[in-house]
Amino acid sequence: MNERLKRQLEFALEIDKEKNILRQTHLSGAGRRENDAEHAWHMAVMAYLLKEYSNEEIDIGKVMIMCLIHDIVEIDAGDTYAYDENAKLSQKMREEAAKERIYSLLPEDQKRELTAIFEEFEDAKTPEAKFARAMDNLQPLILNDSNDGADWREHGVRADQVYGRQKPTKEGSEILYEATDEIIKKHIERKNLS
Amino acid sequence: MNERLKRQLEFALEIDKEKNILRQTHLSGAGRRENDAEHAWHMAVMAYLLKEYSNEEIDIGKVMIMCLIHDIVEIDAGDTYAYDENAKLSQKMREEAAKERIYSLLPEDQKRELTAIFEEFEDAKTPEAKFARAMDNLQPLILNDSNDGADWREHGVRADQVYGRQKPTKEGSEILYEATDEIIKKHIERKNLS
Repeated sequence: MNERLKRQLEFALEIDKEKNILRQTHLSGAGRRENDAEHAWHMAVMAYLLKEYSNEEIDIGKVMIMCLIHDIVEIDAGDTYAYDENAKLSQKMREEAAKERIYSLLPEDQKRELTAIFEEFEDAKTPEAKFARAMDNLQPLILNDSNDGADWREHGVRADQVYGRQKPTKEGSEILYEATDEIIKKHIERKNLS
Repeated sequence: MNERLKRQLEFALEIDKEKNILRQTHLSGAGRRENDAEHAWHMAVMAYLLKEYSNEEIDIGKVMIMCLIHDIVEIDAGDTYAYDENAKLSQKMREEAAKERIYSLLPEDQKRELTAIFEEFEDAKTPEAKFARAMDNLQPLILNDSNDGADWREHGVRADQVYGRQKPTKEGSEILYEATDEIIKKHIERKNLS
């Protein structure tokens, strides 16, 4: 086996650890907590299914790989809950170090390529990144909605916090943001959000 | 929310159940059993990383969505272990019924599209399907290799069975089949395969 392939397979094995990084979101049917790999898989399938709602034309292959790798840094940095303001302060620093260590396992050209895709997602400026981020918001929303807002109730999340997080969905898809707004309003009415 | 989007989101919620379908493969580090959604995520990332080794030119976006959805039918049909000859006899029938029920949740045009992608994977004739199937073989191989062949030892799997399963990788990638052969030979030597 040549050196290049060895490094690629080493990276492929390393990212297996993403399956152990738990999120705050629970699976539908009031199931166990979801992990990052499952979340990324779900986002990528949803991106493909819902691509017709993107505000701008997108390269769906690029959106999918962006969804699939966007949480690899959490292998080292851990999951940062969207409503944990303290953890969010150190998130960037933790994720920068993780990015350097993990992507350095790859051959140099692929390290550059995948790092660039991850950074594009983080910067949220291109049509692909905006749509991928809309999926990052919508995916846990539909799970939590299916569990009657249990994740929000558990953490005492407020409606304005949810709007703060979900607003950027609008940049990726006006139509999906309308659906999001409809879902949030329903949960305010049901008092799942204060 | 319009009827079309409602159906798409209903399908997106339904496939969440794939996260509960357990495979025989264990995660690296002698971890717990892997589920189908994690397996599909891992395959799709590996397809992107290793695409340079495909025998033929491939549309990587198509390979990724193929990897991501190829096990959705197992929500109803369950996972069929690659070396369980009895279960494999009824596999096709179980998966046909599952395909019809689950993809019918989608709008008609997307039902047709995703069913066709799934069938293309099953038929293993196009360059994309051949490469996706190579990933379906290689992904559990690297996990099992990292656990010193524990999954094979647990089930008393023979070398000829592993070769039978892994041979089609050659159709997708000669180079990845050489790497596969190297790994199998190592485990025969270590007596992890009889």
